[in-house]
Amino acid sequence: MLSLYVANKNYSSWSMRPWVLLKQAGIPFQEVKVRFDPFDLPDADSQFKQRLAEVTPAGRVPVLVDDGFAVWDSLAIVEYVHEKFPDRNIWPSDPQARARARTVCAEMHAGFSALRSHCPMNIEASLPQIGALTWRDQPAVRKDVQRIIAMWSGLLEQYKGPMLFGEFSAADAYFAPVCLRIKNYGLPVPGHVTDYIRRVCALSGVKAWVEDALAEKDFLDFEEPYRTSR
Amino acid sequence: MLSLYVANKNYSSWSMRPWVLLKQAGIPFQEVKVRFDPFDLPDADSQFKQRLAEVTPAGRVPVLVDDGFAVWDSLAIVEYVHEKFPDRNIWPSDPQARARARTVCAEMHAGFSALRSHCPMNIEASLPQIGALTWRDQPAVRKDVQRIIAMWSGLLEQYKGPMLFGEFSAADAYFAPVCLRIKNYGLPVPGHVTDYIRRVCALSGVKAWVEDALAEKDFLDFEEPYRTSR
Ligand SMILES: N[C@@H](CCC(=O)N[C@@H](CS)C(=O)NCC(=O)O)C(=O)O
Ligand SMILES: N[C@@H](CCC(=O)N[C@@H](CS)C(=O)NCC(=O)O)C(=O)O
Repeated sequence: MLSLYVANKNYSSWSMRPWVLLKQAGIPFQEVKVRFDPFDLPDADSQFKQRLAEVTPAGRVPVLVDDGFAVWDSLAIVEYVHEKFPDRNIWPSDPQARARARTVCAEMHAGFSALRSHCPMNIEASLPQIGALTWRDQPAVRKDVQRIIAMWSGLLEQYKGPMLFGEFSAADAYFAPVCLRIKNYGLPVPGHVTDYIRRVCALSGVKAWVEDALAEKDFLDFEEPYRTSR
Repeated sequence: MLSLYVANKNYSSWSMRPWVLLKQAGIPFQEVKVRFDPFDLPDADSQFKQRLAEVTPAGRVPVLVDDGFAVWDSLAIVEYVHEKFPDRNIWPSDPQARARARTVCAEMHAGFSALRSHCPMNIEASLPQIGALTWRDQPAVRKDVQRIIAMWSGLLEQYKGPMLFGEFSAADAYFAPVCLRIKNYGLPVPGHVTDYIRRVCALSGVKAWVEDALAEKDFLDFEEPYRTSR
């Protein structure tokens, strides 16, 4: 049996990716929820770090545990699931499409730091005013979003939708948190991108994660640069 | 025929990874060297960006081009080469070892930002004084190096060396720039880690890259937080 360690669903964008992937691909797993500490604590005092130490030396979620064997890091989890469930279309079946899907996921994995830091994922919050100010004042965020628009537009055109590579693949799971950021901060994107975001939000795996996030009602200051309370 | 676009060998740690991997695995390729701009320029004026625009919309090296098909991002290149040359042991053959190798590479891909920013790769420079100050003043760098030490120690013990997963794999190529950083900044690591670094530096693929880097003699200010000239 697979277990997937995740943190707060409202905030943890990295946890969301493999969770949505497994759900959407119909792969059963047990969820292990490890709440973030409410304050920044040294590792020795952190319940989060101590709980995770059972399964990962890297101290971060997500972690997939397969019968005692742990895979930490979201991208390595995708590859593990791809190898273990070759019939679930985790990556596109065409080799070039698969290479392209891995490329854009790796790009996400290492990049888009301006978007990630200025518009942290916060599923329950609607922050269009903050989004408008960020858009006006942060050229690096505009650049990140422009790259996303160009990437998605090209892929949707080439593979004819509805998902980035035609049918659902790990790439859509990987960009689901970006969809939620664009939506919640109201960042300006063309209509066909809004349509793609709408389709991602309608995926059953994404809907299930978002429902859980909305039910959480757990406000953590250090994840909230723009709110003082819920 | 494969072409690999790389930037300055003295500085470009991301370029180094797939180049060393291909060399070490004995996979022939044509190198396309794209020099970094000497100054920070808007994309429209950047020769680097314009040259890369032929092959990648992401504007970064490395890029692997296989008969007109481009794979940008170092980690996606590793997976592409793994699929195209299944007999070259790009990843370890045991599934759990392979998952672990992918995990530590993905960890590198997204992390170690303190080490990366405070100790940028600079192959020709010996900077032990800077390394000592950095070690004293930057707890985040110490934390990054401690994680590296724990990771490498565990893998060298589990897989019995000489490389991280026994024989050479993409993981050693992925950490080669970290080896050079630890060496050139003189960061304190235990003896068995120094021994591993020495073995990595003795790999023919690493030696070939380092020789090219030393022959370059191309000083770029914005890559040089610690020197005013060569
Ligand atoms: N590269 C990692 C990043 C994981 C990550 O940064 N996770 C965050 C939560 S979204 C975390 O665990 N942070 C806790 C910490 O760094 O202490 C992955 O893709 O899994
Ligand atoms: N995630 C990318 C990172 C590549 C990267 O940042 N490359 C640097 C050179 S080492 C670059 O091209 N920088 C130029 C720029 O950002 O303008 C990869 O793994 O290939």
